[in-house]
Amino acid sequence: MSDAAVTFAKENGERFVEELKALLRIPSVSTDPERAADVRRAAEYIAVELRRIGMENVRLIETSTPETVLASSSGPGQVVAAREGHPLVYADHLHAVPAADGKPVVTILLYGHYDVQPPEPLDEWKTPPFEPTERDGDLFARGSADDKGQVWMHVKALESLLATGGGRLPVNVRVIVEGEEEVGGEGIAAFVREHPDQLAADVALVSDSEMFAPDLPTLCVGLRGMIYTEIEARGARTDLHSGMYGGAAPNPLVALAQIIAKLKDESGRILIPHFYDHVAAPTAAELKAWKALPFDEEHYRETEVGSTELTGEPGFSVLERTWARPALDVHGIAGGFTGAGAKTVIPARAVAKVSMRLVPEMTTAESFALFKTYVESICPRGITLEVRLIHSGDPTVVSTDNAFVRAATSAMHTVFGKETVYIRSGGSIPIVGDFIRELGIPSVLMGFGLPDDNIHAPNEKFHLANFHRGIESIVRFMTSAGA
Amino acid sequence: MSDAAVTFAKENGERFVEELKALLRIPSVSTDPERAADVRRAAEYIAVELRRIGMENVRLIETSTPETVLASSSGPGQVVAAREGHPLVYADHLHAVPAADGKPVVTILLYGHYDVQPPEPLDEWKTPPFEPTERDGDLFARGSADDKGQVWMHVKALESLLATGGGRLPVNVRVIVEGEEEVGGEGIAAFVREHPDQLAADVALVSDSEMFAPDLPTLCVGLRGMIYTEIEARGARTDLHSGMYGGAAPNPLVALAQIIAKLKDESGRILIPHFYDHVAAPTAAELKAWKALPFDEEHYRETEVGSTELTGEPGFSVLERTWARPALDVHGIAGGFTGAGAKTVIPARAVAKVSMRLVPEMTTAESFALFKTYVESICPRGITLEVRLIHSGDPTVVSTDNAFVRAATSAMHTVFGKETVYIRSGGSIPIVGDFIRELGIPSVLMGFGLPDDNIHAPNEKFHLANFHRGIESIVRFMTSAGA
Repeated sequence: MSDAAVTFAKENGERFVEELKALLRIPSVSTDPERAADVRRAAEYIAVELRRIGMENVRLIETSTPETVLASSSGPGQVVAAREGHPLVYADHLHAVPAADGKPVVTILLYGHYDVQPPEPLDEWKTPPFEPTERDGDLFARGSADDKGQVWMHVKALESLLATGGGRLPVNVRVIVEGEEEVGGEGIAAFVREHPDQLAADVALVSDSEMFAPDLPTLCVGLRGMIYTEIEARGARTDLHSGMYGGAAPNPLVALAQIIAKLKDESGRILIPHFYDHVAAPTAAELKAWKALPFDEEHYRETEVGSTELTGEPGFSVLERTWARPALDVHGIAGGFTGAGAKTVIPARAVAKVSMRLVPEMTTAESFALFKTYVESICPRGITLEVRLIHSGDPTVVSTDNAFVRAATSAMHTVFGKETVYIRSGGSIPIVGDFIRELGIPSVLMGFGLPDDNIHAPNEKFHLANFHRGIESIVRFMTSAGA
Repeated sequence: MSDAAVTFAKENGERFVEELKALLRIPSVSTDPERAADVRRAAEYIAVELRRIGMENVRLIETSTPETVLASSSGPGQVVAAREGHPLVYADHLHAVPAADGKPVVTILLYGHYDVQPPEPLDEWKTPPFEPTERDGDLFARGSADDKGQVWMHVKALESLLATGGGRLPVNVRVIVEGEEEVGGEGIAAFVREHPDQLAADVALVSDSEMFAPDLPTLCVGLRGMIYTEIEARGARTDLHSGMYGGAAPNPLVALAQIIAKLKDESGRILIPHFYDHVAAPTAAELKAWKALPFDEEHYRETEVGSTELTGEPGFSVLERTWARPALDVHGIAGGFTGAGAKTVIPARAVAKVSMRLVPEMTTAESFALFKTYVESICPRGITLEVRLIHSGDPTVVSTDNAFVRAATSAMHTVFGKETVYIRSGGSIPIVGDFIRELGIPSVLMGFGLPDDNIHAPNEKFHLANFHRGIESIVRFMTSAGA
């Protein structure tokens, strides 16, 4: 079954890429309220295609996030206002035939997201972010690798199997594609929590991560978690003139700088008390495997990062620092005047966006509580602070001793002709934690991005060879998992 | 002569305010390139009125700032590109008759500026910044106090004197009004430097400062200088994802925070080595006079600043800290993502706008050199810096032992019926230094703003009683200076 499907995928590869380009042309930036219609259009595009290839029960599931709860005289609190969320795309196909040996039918939940990061700064793109362009075997567009290209691998693997299998699949399949991954994924988290039966499965296949190197089949078995916060600092009642008031009025931008400078020391070690208390060290076997990976820190510095030096905690390798150690970053500081020229303002308020990456056994709740308590304890004089949690996701580690991980390993070995390496990722895929907690299922993180794909940055790309190998690997994984 | 002019001003006061409102409706934001036409429109409005009231040689003087100088094979370097500046408004009236006692005729140079600060944040204005609105005796609009309202006092004092003096003035008068005060005033600085003869005068009258209290006639005899800088920090080659790279890639926003936190300590003392070396202490007489002023720090904190505490160097009063001590402020930090929601970016670059206020005997050149050297010396690892000077102005002190200061004191005494207080201002008026250096003349800083006028902030206002008393004071000052 899988060989015919692979042949079909190869014969139709060019069409698959053209279809993906149409999806990439839709600017489904979930963080931008003005793009809400585009986000929905991307969901509809995927739903239409799932229906066309023969998937069933295809539908958009609306999501919303309750924002205000008012007590009512006649009963319990009532939600009176809700923010409309971006829809989930759902489909299934549940007609797999049990194998001759009586093994129960396996159900695989395919997960991906169709929303993308904002494309800014626009002037750093060589070709426009929403005009997909092929150059040297890469497809450049916002969302090409993260994650529309990988979602399309799922859809096209399903098409290849259905088209060559007489409308049947080797396993039962449910598909869920969300549109809020880049803004915290509250909608899918609520759906998973409230309707676990509608997503019942044995394993999730998540393709939203990257390979370690272009020809190295990779399974990601660990993810960092995160807490994304805002620190709002208020000083004077209104903006003040720095000539008249400089030397007497508190400056919220200076206060935020003073706070940020105390969040980690200059070597990169986070200074929040007890922040490292529950950090679990990788096993000796993991550390040994990571040392054997083809990784050169100087090459990484020069080609991937491009800075004069790398930073981070002393005593840990780059892979340990980005996969198995917490990190803290500042993403933006709003307030005052940042336009062209000079405005001599002491702003009344300023806001810093600060996130922390978490590793197993840290929890989001405790980490945020430690952060908030510490920030409040170092508040400069004259300043009042509000520390807010914007969103969060648990860190996860997936066991390699799992039939589905073995099936994925075998599928990729067939496609790549090489041993699969097990890595972790520094990124966060909160849904993986939700699947563990609410559905009780592990996730196979079979991603086909590359380290230099510029996800979340200008000139994001997807290596097209990986798009095709990804489809083949998923076809073989589903076949092997159902055998 | 002055009594008739004062009567004229009183009878025409309402018309004067309506004319001022028309000027305030023009959004002459000099820092915004898209407002260039509006800035010119404000200049033209003033020129038309100066011509109407009988001033002579009224004209707009174009300014430009050379930006590129190329060596030429046939001679010295040639300016090949220039940024177009905002025009100066010039007028004069040089027909004063010498007094009977043979004293030489005095020439007064009236200075003000017609450009305004950006109005942002717009949502904090109770009424729109460019729709002048009267409330409780105040006129609310961007530029009402800083400085269009005060420019209009000059124009209306001239009108009152010309209308009641048979087309003659008690002194020779030159008027120069600039349109780049809020962006560094390079145009007028160049004009003063290159054409001192066209502005030849005995004294400048500058109305761009404030009174110490609503009914307290005030002359400002000292100004802080300033250097306005940008620190640009670069880390990775492109924006990076904080999940993948957090813990290894340098973060320019964190680097700027670390640098800013080292620019002054938490008490407010600036940490740049040798920065205080040339700070001249106020005289004992000045300090004694300041202590006698009606100033209550707690009232100031609560009503003017509105913060929980004041900040600044220990051991100095608020007036010393804001008038006679240097100060350092951050006005904005650009880079990364500051929109709604969460973007997990480590930006490739970030820029902080940082200014320092200078006091006599500090110089702008040495202060900037000390700042630049220090910032570069504390550059965090993995980061490259560029430290730029955006504009600067010298600090100045004007002697109170001056005939024109005495004439101004006497004029204000007549109008207010109270003794004039001599103060300094924490703000910077670079042109005062240019007048000293290039024209060899002192400036009388007779300003009629109030401490709560919200200049450079939302809800800027001008107290209309001061507008009228200002006109009267200027009429009496010119009459007295010419007697």
